[in-house]
Amino acid sequence: MTVTAARGFVASGVTAGIKTSGDPDLALVVNRGPAPAAAGVFTSNRIQAAPVRWSRRALAHGNVSAVVLNSGGANACTGPAGAEDARTMAERTALAVGVSPDDVAVCSTGLIGVPLPMDRVVDGIEFAARRLTTDGGRDAAVAIKTTDSVHKTAVVARSGWTVGGMAKGAGMLAPGLATMLVVLTTDAVADGPLLDSVLRAAVRTTFDRVDSDGCMSTNDTVLLLASGASGVTPEDGELTDAVHAVCLDLARQLIADAEGAAKEIEVAVVGAASEEDAVTVGRSVARNNLLKCALHGEDPNWGRVLSAIGTTDADFDPDGLDVAINGVWVCRDGAAGEPREKVDMSGRRITITVDLRAGQASAEIWTNDLTAEYVHENSAYSS
Amino acid sequence: MTVTAARGFVASGVTAGIKTSGDPDLALVVNRGPAPAAAGVFTSNRIQAAPVRWSRRALAHGNVSAVVLNSGGANACTGPAGAEDARTMAERTALAVGVSPDDVAVCSTGLIGVPLPMDRVVDGIEFAARRLTTDGGRDAAVAIKTTDSVHKTAVVARSGWTVGGMAKGAGMLAPGLATMLVVLTTDAVADGPLLDSVLRAAVRTTFDRVDSDGCMSTNDTVLLLASGASGVTPEDGELTDAVHAVCLDLARQLIADAEGAAKEIEVAVVGAASEEDAVTVGRSVARNNLLKCALHGEDPNWGRVLSAIGTTDADFDPDGLDVAINGVWVCRDGAAGEPREKVDMSGRRITITVDLRAGQASAEIWTNDLTAEYVHENSAYSS
Repeated sequence: MTVTAARGFVASGVTAGIKTSGDPDLALVVNRGPAPAAAGVFTSNRIQAAPVRWSRRALAHGNVSAVVLNSGGANACTGPAGAEDARTMAERTALAVGVSPDDVAVCSTGLIGVPLPMDRVVDGIEFAARRLTTDGGRDAAVAIKTTDSVHKTAVVARSGWTVGGMAKGAGMLAPGLATMLVVLTTDAVADGPLLDSVLRAAVRTTFDRVDSDGCMSTNDTVLLLASGASGVTPEDGELTDAVHAVCLDLARQLIADAEGAAKEIEVAVVGAASEEDAVTVGRSVARNNLLKCALHGEDPNWGRVLSAIGTTDADFDPDGLDVAINGVWVCRDGAAGEPREKVDMSGRRITITVDLRAGQASAEIWTNDLTAEYVHENSAYSS
Repeated sequence: MTVTAARGFVASGVTAGIKTSGDPDLALVVNRGPAPAAAGVFTSNRIQAAPVRWSRRALAHGNVSAVVLNSGGANACTGPAGAEDARTMAERTALAVGVSPDDVAVCSTGLIGVPLPMDRVVDGIEFAARRLTTDGGRDAAVAIKTTDSVHKTAVVARSGWTVGGMAKGAGMLAPGLATMLVVLTTDAVADGPLLDSVLRAAVRTTFDRVDSDGCMSTNDTVLLLASGASGVTPEDGELTDAVHAVCLDLARQLIADAEGAAKEIEVAVVGAASEEDAVTVGRSVARNNLLKCALHGEDPNWGRVLSAIGTTDADFDPDGLDVAINGVWVCRDGAAGEPREKVDMSGRRITITVDLRAGQASAEIWTNDLTAEYVHENSAYSS
């Protein structure tokens, strides 16, 4: 049911013909209220796709009650014409579903630098608007797939209200494809400012901790829409908990489906002086190409973990670092610890634990290994 | 002739048996004066190998007149025992060549976290000391190779004086191997403070601009030794020019020999508001895995260049960026420019030019493509 698991929402997904494959490539999600509200977070890349610029403005302006999404083209680095295309998508969606263009968010994903085939996009929007139903969530989730092998959805039901969501993307990408689009819906009663704080809190420890290949997209967008259709106003923290749970579920699905990856890696940093230190160290470890190759080869190469930690300005003593791989403390006090032969890395999941021994803060970063398949998928000519 | 091209130096390279392959693995370089002076720069990784810690102290203490180098083991992350091993290497070298242990620099390269076979190292030092000759530079250069396919040397001769050098390493590494050891020699007359400023200026725009895989070693060391044997004191700037030329030559040899790489890539950033901005943008582009895969596939994917630029805080207008690949301006004003079909990427060398249109500063970063061979070489089990 995904985004239509929450009452007050209709959705659809259709084949507009943007993709040459004939697979579904255009989706709509519409909030029918009765008390619509919205929030969103966007990529922090300074190169922002035209739809991201549009959606930022729409959210800043007030509410967003409809979302149009397409795969098959990112509409990024497309100049003034691309900005016009994003506006046209909003206007046509607004006309088709009966809202103001300023209330429409636009999300695109696909190749960078190539204009969208707007005649097909416009026809697709009108077709999708006629297909909107209260069980259209699955079709919408399918239509936003790019190189995803499966569509990604999650639902958390609470007493009288629900949070649902869909996501597309993976850290490891086909040529030029943008990373992550997420739409979350709830029938709880909540206003825009509350949704904004709930969404930022949830994203900070879920999607923001996914770092598959260190590459930041021009199109990343996460939207949270509330309809109020349940009539229930959750107690303090309940909505954050539920939205966090859905985000965590979807984030793990992204890592699990990362293309070309053979391992799902959790870098757990503990004993940090601050959460910021823990995140910095976790990202540095997660982005180290040499380590990611070693983990692919099931080599418990803790020396590369230390090399990566050493490039950060986090608080630690180089001679006081402990590192465990899948629970075996192969590095103690910055030198060899338990025998590396004890480490079993044959499974798909690997956990690297770094104890900075400098405080009580912690954080987890999720990443993947670096594989020949990743190179292959991302070095094929983009056309 | 390498490090023995300059008068006043003797060197040797021998097989101590540290490597299981039987290849040469221990080298000595000794400065016979008459006016010995030295300077050094080291990795900025906070995890520093024992020999790096030792050599830093030796240089801080005063002069360094002998260098002992080994391949086959990095002596990094080896705890207090590793520190003792580095000290022993300095003491045995000092005894064998007749200097104080405080005047000996130690350089090691190889697997991290594994103790050196000190009996073999000590025997090797004594053997190498007996082999010291004024034409031993080539043997020394060969003995510091790890996965290098060729030994790397350079010489610049000026009027009455000379700068020579040897280097080992490459950005793309075999499992756990550390990156770069460089010894430069000159028979010019120069004191320690002058050598220090000359070396820092030369390294800043050469070895510091090599960024093959974004991974920073625990063992990187670059040493410059002057003997004064020519009796010539170069004029202001002459010594810097010559040392820079040798460093540039060796840096390019490192990139050319990077294992698993099929392309040598120069990222030239122009029109930057500051050199720091240019370096920041160049590094971000050079470290982008998606772009490095695309370049491997000879795909002129300027969208990935822009994505990488957008992650920096450099001064630029996202809609005012120009990017050329091998001289074809495929991106103008942050959008598509000349047809990508015009770009010929079939050669081994690729130049990416980024014009930030924000000032007059510039910088070049050299890197390699990301290949399945890189993954293969770095995911093999480290033992």
